[in-house]
Amino acid sequence: MLKQFSLDTTRHGLVNITRQVAQAVKESTVQDGIAVVYCPHTTAAITINENADPDVVHDLILGLNAAFPDRPDFRHGEGNSAAHLKSSCVGASETILVAEGRLVLGTWQGVYFCEFDGPRHRQFFVKVM
Amino acid sequence: MLKQFSLDTTRHGLVNITRQVAQAVKESTVQDGIAVVYCPHTTAAITINENADPDVVHDLILGLNAAFPDRPDFRHGEGNSAAHLKSSCVGASETILVAEGRLVLGTWQGVYFCEFDGPRHRQFFVKVM
Amino acid sequence: MLKQFSLDTTRHGLVNITRQVAQAVKESTVQDGIAVVYCPHTTAAITINENADPDVVHDLILGLNAAFPDRPDFRHGEGNSAAHLKSSCVGASETILVAEGRLVLGTWQGVYFCEFDGPRHRQFFVKVM
Repeated sequence: MLKQFSLDTTRHGLVNITRQVAQAVKESTVQDGIAVVYCPHTTAAITINENADPDVVHDLILGLNAAFPDRPDFRHGEGNSAAHLKSSCVGASETILVAEGRLVLGTWQGVYFCEFDGPRHRQFFVKVM
Repeated sequence: MLKQFSLDTTRHGLVNITRQVAQAVKESTVQDGIAVVYCPHTTAAITINENADPDVVHDLILGLNAAFPDRPDFRHGEGNSAAHLKSSCVGASETILVAEGRLVLGTWQGVYFCEFDGPRHRQFFVKVM
Repeated sequence: MLKQFSLDTTRHGLVNITRQVAQAVKESTVQDGIAVVYCPHTTAAITINENADPDVVHDLILGLNAAFPDRPDFRHGEGNSAAHLKSSCVGASETILVAEGRLVLGTWQGVYFCEFDGPRHRQFFVKVM
């Protein structure tokens, strides 16, 4: 089963999509397998990180901006090369295990859609198999 | 189905392999599932990023070189530790969704083999299931 | 088949878990498919890198610490935001191909559990399908 979701993002941000991914697993009726969460955009990404303290999300964005800043020698005319770079380093997808019909996430893990060049209207896919 | 491809790389570079991955999906006759693109090398990687403007590829390499430079306190005798680091950050594989017999890629997405320590003769694998 | 493993880590370190992953593949009796190695922690990760020279592991940690240092403007009270950042950049899982009942790894590739905020008691999962 392939399920598509939409969201509207702010400029930079991580949006917690754990609930949607868990819902897709439930609807799939798959008991044991994997869920692949996929981002079809090149200036956004999917990651798994802490679901509790929102300061972690703040710090992730800050740390990514510091490690992958805009650079005067970037050539891409749209001016969003740093966002493309973050997209490749964080990655376009996450694969999460499914057991007994549920996502196997650690206690502190949530699934996030990462926006690096918003605000935009975005999609993501969840495939359970 | 596991399909192996070869390529010859330059020193640093991203090689667009979307066509080969799409061909492997077609030959597999899998209608719905996933395609895993896998790099068996430790100084190279697989990523998904923009397929249109080649300046994005230029900027990705520039940004990776800036974030992960060679360092005087690296110990590895081959002198390519920065390439190993990029390999782990960009990642050895990408998982792409397959629906109706085709790769589910976003409009601007292409699949790239990333060479961080070439020129070399390299391989990559595509598994469709 | 979902198999769980435990390990005890040091402060920063990459632990070679290739043997455990290969064992899980063997026990699964899966001949052709994939093995997903999954880390359920938000300050650790899974990566694939060189299995031969331990200096590569030293250099990977050094390079990650340099690219993603602690920062005075991090807000997260636990003081381990750099570890969360490394977790998202290296990634929570690796997907490895299985053919003829064995992991398809390159000659120099090993699978590593990456500890960024130890010492801790940690788990990882291997799903073969």
